[in-house]
Amino acid sequence: MQLTSHTDHAIRILIYLMINPERKISTREIAESYGISLNHLTKVAKSLVKAGWLLSARGGKGGLILAPHTPGTKVGDIVRHTENMCLVVCFSEKTNTCPIAAACELRSVIHRARQAFFDVLDTVTIADISRNPVELNLFLRSPARRSAINPTARAKPRGKQGKA
Amino acid sequence: MQLTSHTDHAIRILIYLMINPERKISTREIAESYGISLNHLTKVAKSLVKAGWLLSARGGKGGLILAPHTPGTKVGDIVRHTENMCLVVCFSEKTNTCPIAAACELRSVIHRARQAFFDVLDTVTIADISRNPVELNLFLRSPARRSAINPTARAKPRGKQGKA
Repeated sequence: MQLTSHTDHAIRILIYLMINPERKISTREIAESYGISLNHLTKVAKSLVKAGWLLSARGGKGGLILAPHTPGTKVGDIVRHTENMCLVVCFSEKTNTCPIAAACELRSVIHRARQAFFDVLDTVTIADISRNPVELNLFLRSPARRSAINPTARAKPRGKQGKA
Repeated sequence: MQLTSHTDHAIRILIYLMINPERKISTREIAESYGISLNHLTKVAKSLVKAGWLLSARGGKGGLILAPHTPGTKVGDIVRHTENMCLVVCFSEKTNTCPIAAACELRSVIHRARQAFFDVLDTVTIADISRNPVELNLFLRSPARRSAINPTARAKPRGKQGKA
């Protein structure tokens, strides 16, 4: 059971923009700062724009900024948007392949566990997880620190595609 | 975020043996009753034998039965055994690729959400989710019912491989 990289990258984009509120920021800058694929990060950023959490301006002075309501958005709402939360096949009648689903107690147990999971995520906002901007920016600005964590994970921006 | 089919099948095996306690049962019977791959189910059953939750007897009158302590086992303990619960990359220092992990608040939030998830699963045992054996067996014994749920999901046992 793991959150997808889509969710991971979505939250990282939001944190990056929270701790750098003074300017528009390109997806390239975010991708390079985190050492992740520009191509994938651009897809995630587009989905956040579409959902209304990011505002995007095109052109030379363009880039991404947070929508005004985004700092107060619950982490749970981001995860609900980015994840398929059908934890087991019987959660959806369309995909269910289990013959005992109608009589089985497991589904309700997993439902309650999922609710408990979100109850925690709903107590925390994007602003809450970004409340030490100086320290977070320090880690993001240090290529040596990034390389020490994972020398192979640096971004390899691909041409001009996906630029916000 | 989804539980793996390994976890799903592990719990289904335990339920099947809970509601059919009077005899040893082959993996083929369980696979055919649920309409899932014999090959995959056999792998899952082996992992449950290895973990001590199932006892396996080989030969013509062989098959699987529950270990004496298994009915009282928490669903949470099964899920901890079958799932990789590193929900995000920063949960493991070995796999972490995120440069801000040391300063980021997200990890502790997800940790707390995961704990809340298990707190629910730990209130329920394998016996609890199997407490209506008559109805559960009724669904398992009805091929028509299975076909109505998913006509393409019937098991296709593969030769002699993987028989318990």
